[in-house]
Amino acid sequence: MAEGAQSVSELPVKRPREEEANGGVTVEMDVNDGGVSELPDCISSVIPGWFSEISPMWPGEAHSLKVEKILFQGKSDYQNVIVFQSATYGKVLVLDGVIQLTERDECAYQEMISHLPLCSIPNPKKVLVIGGGDGGVLREVSRHASVEKIDICEIDKMVVDVSKEYFPSVAVGYDDPRVTLHIGDGVAFLKAVPEGTYDAVIVDSSDPIGPAQELFEKPFFESVAKALRPGGVVCTQAESIWLHMHIIEDIVANCRQIFKGSVNYAWTTVPTYPSGVIGFMLCSTEGPPVNFKNPINPIDADESHIKSKGPLKFYNAEIHSAAFCLPSFARKVIESKAN
Amino acid sequence: MAEGAQSVSELPVKRPREEEANGGVTVEMDVNDGGVSELPDCISSVIPGWFSEISPMWPGEAHSLKVEKILFQGKSDYQNVIVFQSATYGKVLVLDGVIQLTERDECAYQEMISHLPLCSIPNPKKVLVIGGGDGGVLREVSRHASVEKIDICEIDKMVVDVSKEYFPSVAVGYDDPRVTLHIGDGVAFLKAVPEGTYDAVIVDSSDPIGPAQELFEKPFFESVAKALRPGGVVCTQAESIWLHMHIIEDIVANCRQIFKGSVNYAWTTVPTYPSGVIGFMLCSTEGPPVNFKNPINPIDADESHIKSKGPLKFYNAEIHSAAFCLPSFARKVIESKAN
Repeated sequence: MAEGAQSVSELPVKRPREEEANGGVTVEMDVNDGGVSELPDCISSVIPGWFSEISPMWPGEAHSLKVEKILFQGKSDYQNVIVFQSATYGKVLVLDGVIQLTERDECAYQEMISHLPLCSIPNPKKVLVIGGGDGGVLREVSRHASVEKIDICEIDKMVVDVSKEYFPSVAVGYDDPRVTLHIGDGVAFLKAVPEGTYDAVIVDSSDPIGPAQELFEKPFFESVAKALRPGGVVCTQAESIWLHMHIIEDIVANCRQIFKGSVNYAWTTVPTYPSGVIGFMLCSTEGPPVNFKNPINPIDADESHIKSKGPLKFYNAEIHSAAFCLPSFARKVIESKAN
Repeated sequence: MAEGAQSVSELPVKRPREEEANGGVTVEMDVNDGGVSELPDCISSVIPGWFSEISPMWPGEAHSLKVEKILFQGKSDYQNVIVFQSATYGKVLVLDGVIQLTERDECAYQEMISHLPLCSIPNPKKVLVIGGGDGGVLREVSRHASVEKIDICEIDKMVVDVSKEYFPSVAVGYDDPRVTLHIGDGVAFLKAVPEGTYDAVIVDSSDPIGPAQELFEKPFFESVAKALRPGGVVCTQAESIWLHMHIIEDIVANCRQIFKGSVNYAWTTVPTYPSGVIGFMLCSTEGPPVNFKNPINPIDADESHIKSKGPLKFYNAEIHSAAFCLPSFARKVIESKAN
């Protein structure tokens, strides 16, 4: 590596809020597409007629999607919410300027964050989803016939409403009778949960700037561990090995202290997330041992869910195990913190 | 998936040359960074002071990197060549408007395209590299102590010269005495190779628009098969499962006809490549069987190369095997064509 080049392990990530959200880039508001009447201020549009995702979480780079039509824009109590029709990625949900899902690649994230934990334990019955207001994780969790109860705690009702209106194939998860929706703060919800309630907790959060910040902190992980039965599992969104190794290092160190079963990091490809990958932290509490790398509860075999929800597009048992194989630069850091 | 949404298997890729290379996007030439005196015409700069990668190969999306300084711009007999210093990815090499490598993530591509084939066969001795003018594949191939002879055939001398000047940690591969550089057309070079010469051929090409087009066609694969010894292996750059499934399908079908040993597809993460992933086609000729999924010639164990070339950053035996695990949507298409 040449002098002055940045090593993958020397993170260029600046602390949130050090920079303006638009990174000093000129914001263009001209529109050259007949389908777009006006781009809202809360879209960081640097290319006329395109949506560009710019954030201090990934300085110096931006991914842009061509906008065909803005379908919804609103400001909830927590964040800016946008839905647009893109030229080549289907409809796109954006929260505070950051892409949460596109119809074209949401399968990768939703299937992996759900089935990595649920296929790792026998007969999951009670599942809690924190965040995940779009309903995609519910869609995946409800594919598991063993599950009897699915609680979801989402802070922002606008995300739920918008998803039901514009992303019916994602929000289909809400149609399952086992689902109970709680609108509120996930941290407070978890504190009130009786000890040992859930077999699995899935934390489908946005980045640690804004409403999701507490979901990356130690007290939150302690509440999760308390809410899980012995040998219960948690899977949390855990950022990118290419961009956020320092954040990941901290999460791993915290989890290692709190979860006395397994502590593992996995990752997958999502083209519209920064750097094209997203990671997951998978942990189990003390109790029956969980080997996340070898799924023992295959979803592939059970096809009863396909009629209502469509087939799995991304997840299979092979890619489950492969997700835990890390590039050497990431393995070195994570193994120094985890078992 | 909602009506009107694009399935991952329904490709939005338009045929090359159907669209203008700039996709109809306004090109801005204003510059707001003191380090950049003037952005050359051949950079599709849609954000002032940023480089944006726009191509009919990935319509409707663009990845942008903030430019600190243009270090080189030239036009060779084959393509436009740019080197710039980016804000967060180190130096960047761009050919015909498409990012070929950045100092920050080149390790993933170079290590995987080289060690996936070479770690799959015992004692590789003679290796041919087609393309790969930057020298990164040479750096990786020369880590293998068993290798006695490395030929490289690169069509564009400007790529070699620019890499030696601006990317010394990549072009270090040329320093190895086992390397012989041939400047010329890879297709013609291969035709002149005596039958059964090489243990491995690595095709490090750009996309199938421009000088690399023939490297994706059937006659080229036939020449490769002829140049390999029985049980010899080839690894070619084979595009993105998210963007180019139709191209991949054709490559797999061609390879299945030509290579009578194994035919496998693998992939890895490269943040600055479109959709954040790149794939590799790995095939072997009739002869001693090759099981690409289980590396039998570990590079991890041999550390003599580290002093001159630095340690491996990305590749390890685990991620080698994991690279062959495909998402279901890709597996379905590829398995219908391959063994």
